[in-house]
Amino acid sequence: MVKRLMFEKPLGMRDTLPFFYKQKSKARRKLSNAILSYGYSFMDTPIMEYHETVGKVSATMDQQLFKLLDQQGHTLVLRPDMTAPIARVAASQLKNSEFPLRLAYDGPVFRAQQTEGGKPAQFEQVGTELIGDHSSYGDAEVIALLVESLKQTGLDDFVITVGHIGYVKAFFNEWLGDDQGTIDTLLNHLYRKNYVGYRETVKSLAVSEDKQETLLQLLTLKGGTEVFDSSRSLARNQSCMQAVNELKQLFRLLQQYDVEKYVYFDLNLISHMDYYTGVLFEGYAPHIGALLCNGGRYDTLLPSFQLNTSATGFAIHLERLVEALHEQEDEERRIGIIVDDDSYTKGIAESKSKRQEGYAVLLQHVDQIPDVQAFQQALAETIDFTKSGGASNE
Amino acid sequence: MVKRLMFEKPLGMRDTLPFFYKQKSKARRKLSNAILSYGYSFMDTPIMEYHETVGKVSATMDQQLFKLLDQQGHTLVLRPDMTAPIARVAASQLKNSEFPLRLAYDGPVFRAQQTEGGKPAQFEQVGTELIGDHSSYGDAEVIALLVESLKQTGLDDFVITVGHIGYVKAFFNEWLGDDQGTIDTLLNHLYRKNYVGYRETVKSLAVSEDKQETLLQLLTLKGGTEVFDSSRSLARNQSCMQAVNELKQLFRLLQQYDVEKYVYFDLNLISHMDYYTGVLFEGYAPHIGALLCNGGRYDTLLPSFQLNTSATGFAIHLERLVEALHEQEDEERRIGIIVDDDSYTKGIAESKSKRQEGYAVLLQHVDQIPDVQAFQQALAETIDFTKSGGASNE
Repeated sequence: MVKRLMFEKPLGMRDTLPFFYKQKSKARRKLSNAILSYGYSFMDTPIMEYHETVGKVSATMDQQLFKLLDQQGHTLVLRPDMTAPIARVAASQLKNSEFPLRLAYDGPVFRAQQTEGGKPAQFEQVGTELIGDHSSYGDAEVIALLVESLKQTGLDDFVITVGHIGYVKAFFNEWLGDDQGTIDTLLNHLYRKNYVGYRETVKSLAVSEDKQETLLQLLTLKGGTEVFDSSRSLARNQSCMQAVNELKQLFRLLQQYDVEKYVYFDLNLISHMDYYTGVLFEGYAPHIGALLCNGGRYDTLLPSFQLNTSATGFAIHLERLVEALHEQEDEERRIGIIVDDDSYTKGIAESKSKRQEGYAVLLQHVDQIPDVQAFQQALAETIDFTKSGGASNE
Repeated sequence: MVKRLMFEKPLGMRDTLPFFYKQKSKARRKLSNAILSYGYSFMDTPIMEYHETVGKVSATMDQQLFKLLDQQGHTLVLRPDMTAPIARVAASQLKNSEFPLRLAYDGPVFRAQQTEGGKPAQFEQVGTELIGDHSSYGDAEVIALLVESLKQTGLDDFVITVGHIGYVKAFFNEWLGDDQGTIDTLLNHLYRKNYVGYRETVKSLAVSEDKQETLLQLLTLKGGTEVFDSSRSLARNQSCMQAVNELKQLFRLLQQYDVEKYVYFDLNLISHMDYYTGVLFEGYAPHIGALLCNGGRYDTLLPSFQLNTSATGFAIHLERLVEALHEQEDEERRIGIIVDDDSYTKGIAESKSKRQEGYAVLLQHVDQIPDVQAFQQALAETIDFTKSGGASNE
């Protein structure tokens, strides 16, 4: 065995030690409970899928997919997200269920590391899919449930930024017509949140100063409900107006859910180059320099599985959520019971009774403890039956 | 897209639909609670590891490993079990913790499918590792916890078959000396539980009839404590006697835990060709034609990570456990609230209040339901706010 690799893990792979595991479990349980309370049903799909079925239609770029070959020569991928696999199941095994379908998931997803970027190659997503509800009511439910789920974990200082891909695309069509090259360049800058690049591209365009000014104003369409009026004034075509009307309707519904204070609009939000088709959103928390959660409406995925319907959903990046919660280590509550041959029976009885009271109890033969003091100090309390009477050490 | 693959999954990969997911969650939660009550700490490791670190030392045969290449040319494996990765962590990040270490895990593991065998290529294992306790007390704890965990899920008709690799190996050394070829053939028959093959090999040996008879009698060493005496009488060398004494001591300790009625001895049990080094066990339940759980003591794995200690643990095959429980579908408890534009506010208030009472509530706009009757029938109760007064349909 080459020593260099003895304790190493593949690039971007991480161990989850007991402390972080506990925090993750706690957050996962709270998210699940919130999601279940909205009537969603959890399901799971395999870690590996055919590239041909879910790899190609997923929202993840091809070069970020982990690929391998099976013995028949098919290319397999480690699932990059759960939305495409769930769409596969919804369109096959669940197609005769009662729609709209409310499905949820919780599991690891994978992104290949191109470089030593420090990003995780495997992370856990908890998410939902509302399939077959084409309305703003569906969009509102998904965002309200996302807010509710995050709040249940104890997070309160987060913001959900909401946009509408229909607005951006119709805005560019209005002002740049069929200059798809320029439009793609600008969309790509927005996708990468490269506003400097966006400005430079706009300033280099051979268009009037007024038009440049309008294109730059797209970047200012961020904030509360006041952006609705400015959005309308920037592009009065029917598609832009419809998108703004949908966002206004969405906001009214979110007010009913009493979650509007977490919502912020951003009319130039592009979470993905060509996946979302309507309302889309991203969630951020302070001190986490990365996306906490995201989601939106996608209309083309299910038809690619021959199910002609629209869907919307969200995914929460569980590890980042736990980092955002930055919780302290829970108080150690485990009890140790130290025994020898003579006190074993007594130790079993005592540990059984303590476990029935709800305690976590380590029953340990003293001969196998290298350092009794350290063993005791790692626990909330130890009862030492090797001493007469069972000395307790708290 | 090739239509043939549209809804297909790679060989041996399965979807977990909501009903089975619920059953799995329930069983997983009960197992976890039992394991936590014994003071074990859950942890997790990545799905992918270097073949060089954990692939080679795992208990899984090389041809059953799922392999892929990373961009640096290292061979990666999808983890075939959790014992080797946990050993890696115990010997590095956790090596300064207080020993004995009690660790637990719950997650998917992978076995490549050689043929269309119908076996799952991915399945979930819930398990424990007790690291640094070399005693029968450790062996007893692991078996007692296994029994306790299974009982907590509601399973009662299972049996844990316990053997000792030290007995079998010393038995063959006593009667076949250094004829390693024959010994390996016989061990392999036992490993595959191919007793016909074992008998045929024994009968073909150029040894005395008495010796053949003794070799055949190994197969009869199954049952309760009466096998201790017959085991001793078949091989009186020191290693065999020590193994039998360890099993006797183990049985006395299991009696103290009050779990001895689940335990059955089998002195020719071989769960793996060369992984276990002492007490080992396998669990079976009726109607499940495959191993439900297994485990045992392994002394060479941790030293391969430069930690000179012994360990023991068990792994439960969660999907098989759920099949063994063959539970009925839980009663549907979700409530539906059907609204239209006018009754939306009322619907939100009602769903909020019901969720606070602990109900799972689907709030659904009527315009998005293709078949209202089917929607209602799929739920325990629906309240239809689109009709005056909110008609209830149970």
